[in-house]
Amino acid sequence: MREGSQDRSLHGEEHYKKSHLGEKTIIQTIQNILGGEFKPDDVGYAATVNGTIVTNIDTLVQSTDIPPSGGLDLRRAARKSVVACVSDFAAKGARPKFGAISLNLADTTSLDDITDIASGLRDASNEYGIRIVAGDTNAGQEMVCTVCLFGEISSDRRRVGRGGALPGDLIFVSGPFGYTALGLEMLLDRNSHPGASETFATQARRSVTHPVARLEFGLACVEYFSSSMDSSDGLAATLSEMAQQSGHVFEINRIPASKQLIRYAASKGLDLKKLVFYGGEEYEIVFTVPKAHRDVMIKRAVELGAPIIEIGNVRDGTTDEKTIRECSVYLNEPDGTGRTGLSGAGWDHFG
Amino acid sequence: MREGSQDRSLHGEEHYKKSHLGEKTIIQTIQNILGGEFKPDDVGYAATVNGTIVTNIDTLVQSTDIPPSGGLDLRRAARKSVVACVSDFAAKGARPKFGAISLNLADTTSLDDITDIASGLRDASNEYGIRIVAGDTNAGQEMVCTVCLFGEISSDRRRVGRGGALPGDLIFVSGPFGYTALGLEMLLDRNSHPGASETFATQARRSVTHPVARLEFGLACVEYFSSSMDSSDGLAATLSEMAQQSGHVFEINRIPASKQLIRYAASKGLDLKKLVFYGGEEYEIVFTVPKAHRDVMIKRAVELGAPIIEIGNVRDGTTDEKTIRECSVYLNEPDGTGRTGLSGAGWDHFG
Repeated sequence: MREGSQDRSLHGEEHYKKSHLGEKTIIQTIQNILGGEFKPDDVGYAATVNGTIVTNIDTLVQSTDIPPSGGLDLRRAARKSVVACVSDFAAKGARPKFGAISLNLADTTSLDDITDIASGLRDASNEYGIRIVAGDTNAGQEMVCTVCLFGEISSDRRRVGRGGALPGDLIFVSGPFGYTALGLEMLLDRNSHPGASETFATQARRSVTHPVARLEFGLACVEYFSSSMDSSDGLAATLSEMAQQSGHVFEINRIPASKQLIRYAASKGLDLKKLVFYGGEEYEIVFTVPKAHRDVMIKRAVELGAPIIEIGNVRDGTTDEKTIRECSVYLNEPDGTGRTGLSGAGWDHFG
Repeated sequence: MREGSQDRSLHGEEHYKKSHLGEKTIIQTIQNILGGEFKPDDVGYAATVNGTIVTNIDTLVQSTDIPPSGGLDLRRAARKSVVACVSDFAAKGARPKFGAISLNLADTTSLDDITDIASGLRDASNEYGIRIVAGDTNAGQEMVCTVCLFGEISSDRRRVGRGGALPGDLIFVSGPFGYTALGLEMLLDRNSHPGASETFATQARRSVTHPVARLEFGLACVEYFSSSMDSSDGLAATLSEMAQQSGHVFEINRIPASKQLIRYAASKGLDLKKLVFYGGEEYEIVFTVPKAHRDVMIKRAVELGAPIIEIGNVRDGTTDEKTIRECSVYLNEPDGTGRTGLSGAGWDHFG
């Protein structure tokens, strides 16, 4: 989890401490030693005697993930640490049912703080029907909340990876992007967006303080996905990872932003593409669907009230090797002025 | 996990940062809010469609668990973070098969450090046959390694709790205690124990740097246990928790120390009881067994090469209510000089 990238993307500032090593290097080093599967995915799978356990672990770190000047209180931060983990399950269409939580507390932590953290964990557990069955508390230099969730799928169920999209597939997102960067700015400084309407400002702030994972949609529609991924590292980074794992080119024809956001960005001279593709921390599902499943999948989404948006299609990467080497995600500018490569540089915890 | 208590118990010093809140208060506060089961146990259970998932989460924190002046390198520390979690499974006779790991790294972390940490995780995974299926890396103020392990037991298997001992049951430990406090002193200061033989010093240091969980013994003998608990919070604290959860009195007749340790403590004027009962971080199983199972259980232990020690028996707590209110664990002094109450004050992460 993290909260800082929006700020970075808008101002080029770095509020939170970063390592000098890149996240990819770190993960690759660990995976080289531990072995196992090398294609990163949102969840892990463990075959047992009678089924397959699905699991994921996610950590909220005070110095990295909680804005220093307030806005995200401990209760909401703790809730969000669970939601972030649920969102990975949503992307894979698996229901998390149980959880284990480890909590590090600094010596400045008060009993009220602990009550807030536990209340936030309870909020999320109630929302998603998760039972916390194991826990651990430790003293440390800062608050760290690690959430490990478990669920189960039948052994014969198809697992949808981040790769797997085929030429001709359609690219969708489960909801609009671009609010989080503005929301964080508003939380850090109440006066940062004087022109925003109260409705708009509330929606922007809530995208940071009260994100919602698209669990029911993921569960209902995973059977149609050829590939999928949780988008919390940012839309461009997510699309890039999926395109590269599939070996094909993702061509984007529509920027998934609400009318309100488009209007606001235009009125303030803000870069809409930056907000949408490089904001990050949107807990949406990015997924690809074979054309043949398009209509039935949209029908299911409408029934569930999921505001999905079709944003592009998958092109054969093998016919254009130079293209995919240089960039695997392109945005066809809506005004017909050509196409722009979307770099995969999304959030890197250690960037 | 932690490493500091030995030092505290021997010198009354506090090397590592502690919160002003007690661990029991913190856990009780969280449990009051989250609901669920209120009797602390070593692992959590989650019923699935076809079985029961057993899980546990354990965290190693740099500032709390790694001695500041060296001795426990990152590879050994990472290995130990897994062993600590395995030990909880051992106490409950369940095999951990899969793991999810979350790693926070400070910005001072080098690629060599990461290689060491991953190597330590691999060491433990190989030793205990665990496959890491999910992971997460984050930037933070200090190194934090959270290990969540899980396994499966059949739904109809009896679960052995920390409580459950009945009057007349025998009390055992799976191996000798008392080396860790000395081992830590030796690691912190090479010259702290000039009189110790090399064999003795090696054993003491290895009890800190290379602990081993009694997994095979726990798996083979759990069927005989009426109650059991991992002893890493210290022997007195473990006995006290088990006695209180059972509602009976634990009477200890033998101090589970090796001849070498008894001899060394006597020659140096060290308090043997303090070393054994209040050292902590021994990854042994403390368990109670009905008398009728004594011989068959000992036979199994001998076959497995587990150096179990019978240390006492369970007395009816209901006949002596005043006693159990005041103290639930007593040591009958070996020299016949009477009995000593063993307070439950073991390790408290926030003590």
